Amino acid sequence: MKACGLIVEYNPFHNGHVYHIRQSKKESGADCLIAVMSGSFLQRGEPAIIDKFHRTKAALAEGVDIVLELPYLYAVQSSNLFAEGAVRTLHESGVSSICFGSESGDADHFTEGYSVYRKNETVYRKLLQNYLDEGMAFPEASRRAYEAIGLTTEKMDLAQPNNILGFSYVRTIMDHHLPITPMAIKRKKSHYHDQTMTGSIASATSIRRKLLLGEGLSEEITETLPEETARQLHHYKRDSSIWHSWEDYFNLVHYRVMTMSTRELATIHGVDEGLEYRIKKTAHGAASFHQWIQRIKTKRYTWTRLQRMFAHILTNTTKADMQRLEHTKTVPYVRLLGMTKTGQAYLNGQKKEMSVPLISKLSQDVDPMLAVEEKASNTYYSVLPADKREQFHRQELQPPIMVE
Amino acid sequence: MKACGLIVEYNPFHNGHVYHIRQSKKESGADCLIAVMSGSFLQRGEPAIIDKFHRTKAALAEGVDIVLELPYLYAVQSSNLFAEGAVRTLHESGVSSICFGSESGDADHFTEGYSVYRKNETVYRKLLQNYLDEGMAFPEASRRAYEAIGLTTEKMDLAQPNNILGFSYVRTIMDHHLPITPMAIKRKKSHYHDQTMTGSIASATSIRRKLLLGEGLSEEITETLPEETARQLHHYKRDSSIWHSWEDYFNLVHYRVMTMSTRELATIHGVDEGLEYRIKKTAHGAASFHQWIQRIKTKRYTWTRLQRMFAHILTNTTKADMQRLEHTKTVPYVRLLGMTKTGQAYLNGQKKEMSVPLISKLSQDVDPMLAVEEKASNTYYSVLPADKREQFHRQELQPPIMVE
Repeated sequence: MKACGLIVEYNPFHNGHVYHIRQSKKESGADCLIAVMSGSFLQRGEPAIIDKFHRTKAALAEGVDIVLELPYLYAVQSSNLFAEGAVRTLHESGVSSICFGSESGDADHFTEGYSVYRKNETVYRKLLQNYLDEGMAFPEASRRAYEAIGLTTEKMDLAQPNNILGFSYVRTIMDHHLPITPMAIKRKKSHYHDQTMTGSIASATSIRRKLLLGEGLSEEITETLPEETARQLHHYKRDSSIWHSWEDYFNLVHYRVMTMSTRELATIHGVDEGLEYRIKKTAHGAASFHQWIQRIKTKRYTWTRLQRMFAHILTNTTKADMQRLEHTKTVPYVRLLGMTKTGQAYLNGQKKEMSVPLISKLSQDVDPMLAVEEKASNTYYSVLPADKREQFHRQELQPPIMVE
Repeated sequence: MKACGLIVEYNPFHNGHVYHIRQSKKESGADCLIAVMSGSFLQRGEPAIIDKFHRTKAALAEGVDIVLELPYLYAVQSSNLFAEGAVRTLHESGVSSICFGSESGDADHFTEGYSVYRKNETVYRKLLQNYLDEGMAFPEASRRAYEAIGLTTEKMDLAQPNNILGFSYVRTIMDHHLPITPMAIKRKKSHYHDQTMTGSIASATSIRRKLLLGEGLSEEITETLPEETARQLHHYKRDSSIWHSWEDYFNLVHYRVMTMSTRELATIHGVDEGLEYRIKKTAHGAASFHQWIQRIKTKRYTWTRLQRMFAHILTNTTKADMQRLEHTKTVPYVRLLGMTKTGQAYLNGQKKEMSVPLISKLSQDVDPMLAVEEKASNTYYSVLPADKREQFHRQELQPPIMVE
């Protein structure tokens, strides 16, 4: 059986994802689609709107055969580490291709870009450092350095967040000489940062915004969602009482900061360059999470960077936790969240080829990194009413979700 | 001017306290009454029902001339350290006597008891250790050891929590040869653990219980409170939205535990003898703070001991914080919360006699121990709505409360 990998957040799963799944299947010719998905917290440092189990169910209903969880330590990171964790997880699970969305739909642009990058890497790194030293934020510094070495072309605009991710996947594959074909799927209609709905395909950003701003599952929104997603969104809120957003966690992270010394804050991953003082200074009087970040934000620190840092404070993810990644050549394990019959058949054959354990339950004492997952999961459910928390956490200890 | 010291929690201030104040003034013949009061958290490891500033106002209205704050590191402790901090604070402020409540109302019983204790201290300590080794909780072990050396007499029953405190005050005074006369004020009517109201004098326990169980300021309760206390209780709830109780903090402390490793938990003061494992194990599924403690409780660990431990987890008070006390001969500072004109006149004369700084604002960078106070205060206000927290915290930065 031939498998193709997708790297996703499904926050929430929507019609654009259905399109991506169909195209990926068609273009890769794979029998089995494997999605590696962020868990409780996402790359931009936000909590997922509904939990990973409910998102898994939505994805399995629409053509994904296997859903794997990208560990927190890779998921809530900038593109390099994010790509490293995702591509490595897919490699362990034996995919022969990875399909990612791009504007052009031509993977050659990315592989050609990689050659340019490799040839000019020293210049790139030097320029990047210069721009950073000037006080520029990383994404902007990196974009300019790419541009200077001729990498920001019309073919592959690295100012587009999706293209940066795509390029990171290709770079990871090629850096490690992995036997994986990168495939670029041409994106349809809506753009990453779009805040308006465009017909039945809308960006996850615009859907989340509308859901969280209190519209709920309006007709306009359900049009952009497969039926099973709408059902999972509905069930999740009915059973848990909320759709998660950062403001739900504001009290917790504020309390935590208010009871930590600056020295303790500096032990947290992402709290660098004296940010601990800035965090403490701005904490007094911040009336919302949004306002707090706005008070900390400078040219050097993007919203995303700060949101990730707050996710690490919230989950108590320390620099010591991060050191676990330093000496790992690959991901320490592959966590299976759910699968179809096809996925199960595929994994039965693949399992013995894997160089790391395939696990399904969080309780398994496989690797110290699972302690970080436990913290992230506990944090995620902390905002549920006390009598619901345990019920939702119990999902972490169940066998993987199975769908016909 | 002659000053007399009181050691109090005023949680809340009630008619029994008015009686104690009048008797103390009469029996000591002092011109100035100085109360050293627990701040945000109390000896039993509970949050105070209303904050220290509102309790200070209630006390100043009823005859106390100066209210000083007992630092958290002394306040949320068993009787020895509690007494050490309170007596030392009063000594620094120059009192010539300390009045405490007792059943008999005869201080000689306590000083005689001290002589018996000193003579038999070695035996006491040995017996205490034996009982502890048998798995007995400290209060019970200590009571039995006192009994064995002939200290639990009808005159001074050390099974009574108030008598234990009184005895600790006397012991601290006499151990350090402080020029302070201990005076026992005969208690009137209600008992420490009474849960029923008895006329217009009721125990703080019964008043709190009735207030928190939703009766609010009923006629029956206001009868037991001076007018100013009822006013402060009313104002506090109106302005902050709550009267504080442990259950308000359950979510915060639960979240904190769920994102700490057992290793991290063991760095917290009071988390000893492997309790970190027991705390983690019982956290899953605990639906309330009450239920959580009940699951942890054993013969060895009393409710109070566990509540104090949870207060330290909640406020992030570490064993390292506690080490600050080890090398201090006296309290590091005296914190003034409020005073009357009489109190002010007294302090003007006394200030230059003090061997430690007299401070009023929390922001003053006088001593590292103030960082612990900051954590305790921030924690206390964490359960207020976001827009109120800052407003209430600002009280910590104001000059002391002044009353005519």
